[in-house]
Amino acid sequence: MSSKHREISIAEFFEKNKHILGYSNPSKALITCVREAVDNSLDACEEAGILPDIMVKISKTGEGFFRIVVEDNGPGIERDQIPRVFGKLLYGSRFHAIKQSRGQQGIGISSAVLYAQITTGKPTVVTSKVEGGKAYRFELLIDTKKNEPEIVSEREVEWFSPHGTRIELEIRGSYVKERKQSVYEYLKETSVVNPHARITFITPDGEVHDFKRISDTPPEPPKEIKPHPHGIEIGTLMAMLKNTKARDLKNFLKTEFVRVGDKISEEILAKAGLPASMSPSSLSREDAERLINAFRLTDLLPPPVDCLSPIGESLIMKSLMEEYSPEFVYAVTRKPKVYSGHPFLVEAGIAYGGEIKEDKVSLLRFANKIPLLYQQSGCALTQAVVSVNWKNYGLQQSKNELPVAPAVILVHVASTNVPYVSESKEAVAAIPEIIEEVRLALQECGRRLKEYVERKKSIQKRKKKEEELLKIIPLLAEKISEVVEREKVDAEKVIARIMGKVYVSREVRDGRAVVVIHNFSSARRRLRIYEMCDGGINGDRTAKWDVEVGPGEECRIEYEFKGRHINRKPLVEGIEEEMLAGGEVVKLGY
Amino acid sequence: MSSKHREISIAEFFEKNKHILGYSNPSKALITCVREAVDNSLDACEEAGILPDIMVKISKTGEGFFRIVVEDNGPGIERDQIPRVFGKLLYGSRFHAIKQSRGQQGIGISSAVLYAQITTGKPTVVTSKVEGGKAYRFELLIDTKKNEPEIVSEREVEWFSPHGTRIELEIRGSYVKERKQSVYEYLKETSVVNPHARITFITPDGEVHDFKRISDTPPEPPKEIKPHPHGIEIGTLMAMLKNTKARDLKNFLKTEFVRVGDKISEEILAKAGLPASMSPSSLSREDAERLINAFRLTDLLPPPVDCLSPIGESLIMKSLMEEYSPEFVYAVTRKPKVYSGHPFLVEAGIAYGGEIKEDKVSLLRFANKIPLLYQQSGCALTQAVVSVNWKNYGLQQSKNELPVAPAVILVHVASTNVPYVSESKEAVAAIPEIIEEVRLALQECGRRLKEYVERKKSIQKRKKKEEELLKIIPLLAEKISEVVEREKVDAEKVIARIMGKVYVSREVRDGRAVVVIHNFSSARRRLRIYEMCDGGINGDRTAKWDVEVGPGEECRIEYEFKGRHINRKPLVEGIEEEMLAGGEVVKLGY
Repeated sequence: MSSKHREISIAEFFEKNKHILGYSNPSKALITCVREAVDNSLDACEEAGILPDIMVKISKTGEGFFRIVVEDNGPGIERDQIPRVFGKLLYGSRFHAIKQSRGQQGIGISSAVLYAQITTGKPTVVTSKVEGGKAYRFELLIDTKKNEPEIVSEREVEWFSPHGTRIELEIRGSYVKERKQSVYEYLKETSVVNPHARITFITPDGEVHDFKRISDTPPEPPKEIKPHPHGIEIGTLMAMLKNTKARDLKNFLKTEFVRVGDKISEEILAKAGLPASMSPSSLSREDAERLINAFRLTDLLPPPVDCLSPIGESLIMKSLMEEYSPEFVYAVTRKPKVYSGHPFLVEAGIAYGGEIKEDKVSLLRFANKIPLLYQQSGCALTQAVVSVNWKNYGLQQSKNELPVAPAVILVHVASTNVPYVSESKEAVAAIPEIIEEVRLALQECGRRLKEYVERKKSIQKRKKKEEELLKIIPLLAEKISEVVEREKVDAEKVIARIMGKVYVSREVRDGRAVVVIHNFSSARRRLRIYEMCDGGINGDRTAKWDVEVGPGEECRIEYEFKGRHINRKPLVEGIEEEMLAGGEVVKLGY
Repeated sequence: MSSKHREISIAEFFEKNKHILGYSNPSKALITCVREAVDNSLDACEEAGILPDIMVKISKTGEGFFRIVVEDNGPGIERDQIPRVFGKLLYGSRFHAIKQSRGQQGIGISSAVLYAQITTGKPTVVTSKVEGGKAYRFELLIDTKKNEPEIVSEREVEWFSPHGTRIELEIRGSYVKERKQSVYEYLKETSVVNPHARITFITPDGEVHDFKRISDTPPEPPKEIKPHPHGIEIGTLMAMLKNTKARDLKNFLKTEFVRVGDKISEEILAKAGLPASMSPSSLSREDAERLINAFRLTDLLPPPVDCLSPIGESLIMKSLMEEYSPEFVYAVTRKPKVYSGHPFLVEAGIAYGGEIKEDKVSLLRFANKIPLLYQQSGCALTQAVVSVNWKNYGLQQSKNELPVAPAVILVHVASTNVPYVSESKEAVAAIPEIIEEVRLALQECGRRLKEYVERKKSIQKRKKKEEELLKIIPLLAEKISEVVEREKVDAEKVIARIMGKVYVSREVRDGRAVVVIHNFSSARRRLRIYEMCDGGINGDRTAKWDVEVGPGEECRIEYEFKGRHINRKPLVEGIEEEMLAGGEVVKLGY
């Protein structure tokens, strides 16, 4: 263990371990390349406030080889940045910024360039133009020993587009369709959670899929924030103390952290027993430990929400509705929380019944609005879903498995630093705080689902009971009236009484009508009654009365009319269908 | 997307993404630190041909904080290498070497140093001594901005050990016991597949566990090899062409690849249509492509086996026997194969029945002799196990799940480059070639298991049938002999005939014995018959006869004897217990 020690460049590392970046087999590699390019386009457009218009074209160049073109209308990249953005691993603009973004590692797109180079030896072609500038076209390789871009060619070109970026990669790959893990599925799910984007996909067979723009307002770009004192690690704090430009501790706290102002910084320093005027670089490890303890003992506002960009409850519900046509849908966006100093929030949605067929529940996982197609079983989001006791919410479930039900579950985690299990961004690591939030979100969805299903069941039960009564009571009534030789009993009224409903009847004689409202329910009712006659009621075709009837009470309306009633039964507003007998429910605004 | 682009150091990257390296929660972080240190020790000893003696000590330093000490008797590290080996990520001796080793990334141990620094701010203490040299003690931190070691202190110390390395880390962690995922379990499983190592573990409670050395021969250290032409990527080939010291193509092929000699290199160049004298650096991309195609068209020996170090079938069986006391055990070591140019081999073992209780099968996963404790469900080895149709082999199984049986399955993949899903080395990526090999190994285990279980069943069935016959036939025989007034039929013989066995009887009258061997089975039998009398048979206490009896035939032995027979029934050698009636089976060498 002596002579052969050597430095390893990160490009060499990933050349040997490309599966870690998502290039473990040809079909996955193709999806990964598309994903890295599209994620970059969406991020760039979002930051510039541009409505994204993205074209993805895949064509076959040989047996097992494909060309991928991804073109966007984003802000473009400055000429001198292009080589390193695409030709150097661990280089980027989003790694050091604390805000939600798809790319956060500075590895993504250059890993695609590296993969193209490894498998075809061909350079990647990048064309980019910033607003008001010229378009430049680069052919790029990566010098893996140095992890530096190697510019094969560079020239100015004409490009009709006012701004944007176009990348062309040639790779070894495999194109699959009609599978959960496919370019089509990735783009579809991307479009579901990015309704402001228009994505055009041209397949190797020349088919064109147009994922349309549904919303014309770009999402508010997430704001960059400073780190939050809660959850910061002592080693990170010590590095910050060493590198800060602040001259004293008080200014250090105020300028390097979020949620720390004059008062809070004084409170922290008092708790730590450190003078405000102390130079940050002079703190010892023990001093830093005191500072960390003081952070912990100080109440602070949670990190600001505007560094995160959730999908939103209504959009999740809308998407699930449109995609799956369920009979019930519900979604929850939880409040932001913090893990190891990184703000995050969790969203969950559930769609149930309707056209969804009974089976193991389909799970849609998203992180920072990127669909996660692989490693479902190795992902903390899945772990959280299966850890919920779905039997509590009326679904079948085997231990540690997805429930069996006609349902789709969606989970989204948004964070300034999504803790992916690996650089391939396929699964979220088992961070306890995140799992807990997902569970809470799902439990709320579960409760709502249970309420819905129980209400549906109880309505069905009432209905069944009523149907049975409807069979018996009229016969009974007839028999009784025969025996006692009296007028026939109103069977519908009897049933309404038994079922605890509101019963409305109308009797007509000689141009006069009497409407009687019996409230057999246990609640006070405020109702509006409508009647319509072709000859008019007091001159109008339609008449209305507002009535209020206590439980067990009744109320009568008498009026004169001409001609015949247009409505077969009195119309009643302000009551649920299942609570009314004898009349007909009308919705507000009828 | 313009101004904020920046280079990211690999240390900064992993500071932010430490969960990727296996530090996602305190208990896992503690195990990971121990594992990185122990793996390093085992690798170093293996390379130096030393029988490892490793001490692991964990002690609590505060609520949620621990000190880890790992000390080995390895070859030690040269003084000038120590800072970078422990204080720089992507630095090491094993990354560029093509041979099986535990550490292959140049990240492991420095990641533990980084984690200690992040969570406690404290430097790691490393003491090391090479044979004949002095011991040096370093306190090290990592400058994360630069990814370079920061030496806090350095001094010469006295150390009684002739050579070795000792590392002391202080971290935030959590110590758990009696769990699948624990330091104890990791060390136990490590010891199972490294029987030449002695590992002493001192827990925070002061308990001492001694995992003893079982084998006194260190495993043959794997040999370093050159890359194999099959499976090499064009991009890698182009880089090799650029960086080689060989002056012409023929020498390039001979010196840079394994399994390429004079003849093969000429064959390859002829197929590629490239001159042997061509300078490697002058090849175009298209030329390189021709070379790759020529590789593909040329038959080559597989890579040499000595770059890999399997556990071995007998050791796997022995380990499973000792650990689980099953009634059946089987193991397979497959021949080496190649994926993307990397040699690998797969081993599998199964233990069944005995003291193993019926449940979902326990799966033990190993990669390069490292136990994989986490991410079972996200691992290709698990995927391969559940993809086998275990019902074919008589086990219960739900789709895509581990079978349910009283069994333990062990899977080991050894490779010059294990394709881990991430740097934390917890799960193997879904490489089709590896999955296929695991399946084949398991299918062989499955077949053997099925044979065993079926044989056991059929013996039980025969036995049951025989028992039933034994109840009926004697009664029947008695009845018949009564009715027909003839001598009683030999019931045992009748049963032997029905069951298709070999039947041996002895009749004795007036100092003479007749042994009759009836072969009712369908096979020709070569048997040895033994008889023993206290007064002697032809002068000897024991007499033996070799006989050969065809199916349906019989054979008689007559002899004179004195005194009484010592053996109640004739003794028969050369037949299975369940095939013999009337006599007693003796094992060879009786």
